[in-house]
Amino acid sequence: MSHPHPELDVPAPLAKGAVRVVPLGGLGEIGRNMTVVEHDGQLLIIDCGVLFPDDHQPGVDLILPDFEYIEDRLDDIQAVILTHGHEDHIGAVPYLLRLKPDLPLIGSQLTLALVEAKLKEHRIKPYTLGVAEGMREVFGHFDCEFIAVNHSIPDALAVFVRTPGGTLLHTGDFKMDQLPLDGRITDLRAFARAGEEGVDLFLTDSTNATVPGFTAPERDISAAIDKVFRGAERRIIAACFSSHMHRVQQVLDAAERNGRKVAFVGRSMIRNMGIAADLGHLHVPDRVLVDVKKLGDLPDDQVVLICTGSQGEPMAALNRMANRDHRIDVGVDDTIMLLSSPIPGNEGSVWRVINGLMRLGAHVVHSGGTDRVHVSGHASAGELLYCYNIVKPKNVLPVHGEWRHLVANRDLAIATGVHPDHIPLAEDGVVVDLVDGRARVVGAVPCGYVYVDGSSVGEADEDLLKDRRILRDEGFISVMVVINSSSGAILAGPEITARGFAEDAEIFDQVRPKIVSAIQDATAKGVTDPHQLQQVIRRAVGGWVGGKIRRRPMIIPTVVEA
Amino acid sequence: MSHPHPELDVPAPLAKGAVRVVPLGGLGEIGRNMTVVEHDGQLLIIDCGVLFPDDHQPGVDLILPDFEYIEDRLDDIQAVILTHGHEDHIGAVPYLLRLKPDLPLIGSQLTLALVEAKLKEHRIKPYTLGVAEGMREVFGHFDCEFIAVNHSIPDALAVFVRTPGGTLLHTGDFKMDQLPLDGRITDLRAFARAGEEGVDLFLTDSTNATVPGFTAPERDISAAIDKVFRGAERRIIAACFSSHMHRVQQVLDAAERNGRKVAFVGRSMIRNMGIAADLGHLHVPDRVLVDVKKLGDLPDDQVVLICTGSQGEPMAALNRMANRDHRIDVGVDDTIMLLSSPIPGNEGSVWRVINGLMRLGAHVVHSGGTDRVHVSGHASAGELLYCYNIVKPKNVLPVHGEWRHLVANRDLAIATGVHPDHIPLAEDGVVVDLVDGRARVVGAVPCGYVYVDGSSVGEADEDLLKDRRILRDEGFISVMVVINSSSGAILAGPEITARGFAEDAEIFDQVRPKIVSAIQDATAKGVTDPHQLQQVIRRAVGGWVGGKIRRRPMIIPTVVEA
Repeated sequence: MSHPHPELDVPAPLAKGAVRVVPLGGLGEIGRNMTVVEHDGQLLIIDCGVLFPDDHQPGVDLILPDFEYIEDRLDDIQAVILTHGHEDHIGAVPYLLRLKPDLPLIGSQLTLALVEAKLKEHRIKPYTLGVAEGMREVFGHFDCEFIAVNHSIPDALAVFVRTPGGTLLHTGDFKMDQLPLDGRITDLRAFARAGEEGVDLFLTDSTNATVPGFTAPERDISAAIDKVFRGAERRIIAACFSSHMHRVQQVLDAAERNGRKVAFVGRSMIRNMGIAADLGHLHVPDRVLVDVKKLGDLPDDQVVLICTGSQGEPMAALNRMANRDHRIDVGVDDTIMLLSSPIPGNEGSVWRVINGLMRLGAHVVHSGGTDRVHVSGHASAGELLYCYNIVKPKNVLPVHGEWRHLVANRDLAIATGVHPDHIPLAEDGVVVDLVDGRARVVGAVPCGYVYVDGSSVGEADEDLLKDRRILRDEGFISVMVVINSSSGAILAGPEITARGFAEDAEIFDQVRPKIVSAIQDATAKGVTDPHQLQQVIRRAVGGWVGGKIRRRPMIIPTVVEA
Repeated sequence: MSHPHPELDVPAPLAKGAVRVVPLGGLGEIGRNMTVVEHDGQLLIIDCGVLFPDDHQPGVDLILPDFEYIEDRLDDIQAVILTHGHEDHIGAVPYLLRLKPDLPLIGSQLTLALVEAKLKEHRIKPYTLGVAEGMREVFGHFDCEFIAVNHSIPDALAVFVRTPGGTLLHTGDFKMDQLPLDGRITDLRAFARAGEEGVDLFLTDSTNATVPGFTAPERDISAAIDKVFRGAERRIIAACFSSHMHRVQQVLDAAERNGRKVAFVGRSMIRNMGIAADLGHLHVPDRVLVDVKKLGDLPDDQVVLICTGSQGEPMAALNRMANRDHRIDVGVDDTIMLLSSPIPGNEGSVWRVINGLMRLGAHVVHSGGTDRVHVSGHASAGELLYCYNIVKPKNVLPVHGEWRHLVANRDLAIATGVHPDHIPLAEDGVVVDLVDGRARVVGAVPCGYVYVDGSSVGEADEDLLKDRRILRDEGFISVMVVINSSSGAILAGPEITARGFAEDAEIFDQVRPKIVSAIQDATAKGVTDPHQLQQVIRRAVGGWVGGKIRRRPMIIPTVVEA
């Protein structure tokens, strides 16, 4: 199996008539999806999402795609196509529009409604063009036809892009539930027509490529939900993503069948369900919905709450309920449903919230148990094989996955007969050129993690994160000394401040005499420069703390002359 | 379902003739197992392990049981029984022996060999008594009979404790593989004999109580391992726990069958396999083992390396190989086997190391795929049901699990006919008394997390961890000012040091004038006390940084008089 290309250089400019594809996010991680397509001097962007940090990026708020590649070419961008409204596809749009506010955003009604709500918080009013499946729009050299796909959010699209240099079919995120709640199936006939016309490059969602078989239908969940409703003695609290309108629909329908009222909890849930209802993606049965403040008037066994936090997110409603830090006081014989499965990496948080809720006496139903309370939003290996066989692409570029997912997706394509040489394996920043019907890796451009951190965008870097890890694990010692500028005598200090240590603060009194003698030795030797004296202090403190308490904290010496 | 008892008080002293059980670790978390059994003024301790921190305990090295409950009663301890040699059962023994070095340690040969090796690093030479299945030893009021159990480390024991106040059967950690590699099955006949005599309290391993069915046999893995060996083009790197001697045995046997040589990598692997081989728990086929330094002489397709790191531990060999930070240079078509499944919470680390190794071109075989390369070390629901039916205990105390595991284990016992009132649900610190054949919760004693942190034991607390989280997420600003002790005029400073911020350091120049004017305003009003001036500085800086960069860092003002 070929391996990625760490020694790739920046490639030559794109040959005339060729098509270039550069992923700036979403390949090598699940998140911050963004793909740049180029032909004859023009660019088309597909998606612009965020990645959420984990404990490897302490203190960071969001991770964006790296826009450096397009920063000098913003005027070449014809359009930004948004395949659907998930954060990992639209979350970075505000930061892109800061660079060029008039970039046109292309998407379905629901997708645009969600991104406009997000942009409103950033005080940006975008240019948008609403599209729907079956429509065809031309943006410069890019003739785009939109195709319905089924996913874990309504109104998701795939896009078939025709250019003079070749055709691309990008699935977006998709699965192929044949009996979806809204009847809007992935349009396999449109995939077939594209295949008959000829798909030069097929960009496919790799998320579940490692999962054999087929993704279970959404409606299978209703049996499990009904079972929970029938057995629930007191209140029911259902947690899911605030973008999963069909999942919420199932809970609303079960509530109606079982004579319960439903309240939405939390700003994002209320906002998104409002948008969905306005656009017809959520059908609220008559008189089922109530305001959460009115729930106290109802008997517990008529209450359903729908909230966020099914991934154990610390600040979301469910975890705060588990920690008794929420207006809703979970108690004995309440029933909680976690209607999602843990995103890789979130498992610890999910178990933590489950244990916490159980300790309060609640029954917790989750995807790790025997009831099917969640199905994935992504095509498994079985569906992907259907797609490769129907589309019969000339080339395949696996997208939307960690390395292991991309590799597995490639293996599926190979199994259906696509030649291995026609399936480049790329990561963020790797450049793939489609020339004379063959797609291959031709180089790579810089593409790092861009951090949103506090008020800053793109300023936090690895050195900062390293500093934060040191502060977290080892603490810091700050030393200030005021010295006489002529004689070098110590006028004030050493003032020592130490934080992040388990040891009693008094222990640091022991290092004071060592600092004093180190300074005196240095000044006796004629050293007067404050910077050099700071180094002297650093060495004295570092040596002591390493030996005495076996730590390697950040040491910050400050020498001031007066 | 009854819920835990947060309002429990310290219980009354133990009634004469009764038996008291106090878990100090292992209930409510998987780790730091320790149980204190009391009768008529005497104590018996079962196990004394550690818990490894996660990102909720930044900078912490280890988490110990809370010894406070026994600190004033050390002379009452008759013995410390160690059921087996895993870290979560022996890892805290050095810290317990610091309190009383002559506490006798009771365990099997292998268990004692492992704990003695650990104690040697702490320069402690313990009193030990080696026991084996079938033996019976009396420690004060505690008449202990040892029973063989099968687990993921050899030589594990259950213990049947007879006291004048009742009998206890503690499974230790166990499963019931009927065809184990060493032929040493869990002695169900001994459980049956105990049941016939009468088991008043059955303490059972809850780890896999949520898993329906039966734990697969260890030998099932050999087929998967052979398949990997047959298909491996270059080197094979097998990662597993350095305590899993049977798993290592399978790799050694497969190497012999397939004409490969094996080298152990890493200090703990080499040490533990040496101990195991000396005691007859590891059988190294002739001429299979080589020194890792000699591997370069062999062709790649004759090489097998056995190392640690199957949980994605950052400092272990496998992760360092994935980051190209190890003497072993993993490359294209090497095959890596992760011979364990992720411990809950470790999933992110495991995926990270798998992706990293695949990016280097290696084939990675792991328990998330289609081949059975791991089986659990713990009994599933199926085995636990056998145990409840054979033992027919009067009372059950679920142990060794998070809350959800304990609850599930209790449900299994109820299903076999044990009355719910005879199955207390306890957590660390909860006191369970066995009186007149009935076990119930009677109170709770303080039992917190005790942190080993740097050179300190038990000094780190929640405030420290909170400080560390602030440092990690928000950074700190240290401000030092030297003022004239009489006039209050500023002699030097404000010297501002800020770390952990993405924003450029120059931004903090903006707060300097605010500090100066805040100090001047205060001194003009007659404020001269350095502590009050520090508060003035804190408010000035806090207000500015919250508004300007939307952070809430640790602010450390220091005012020195000169």
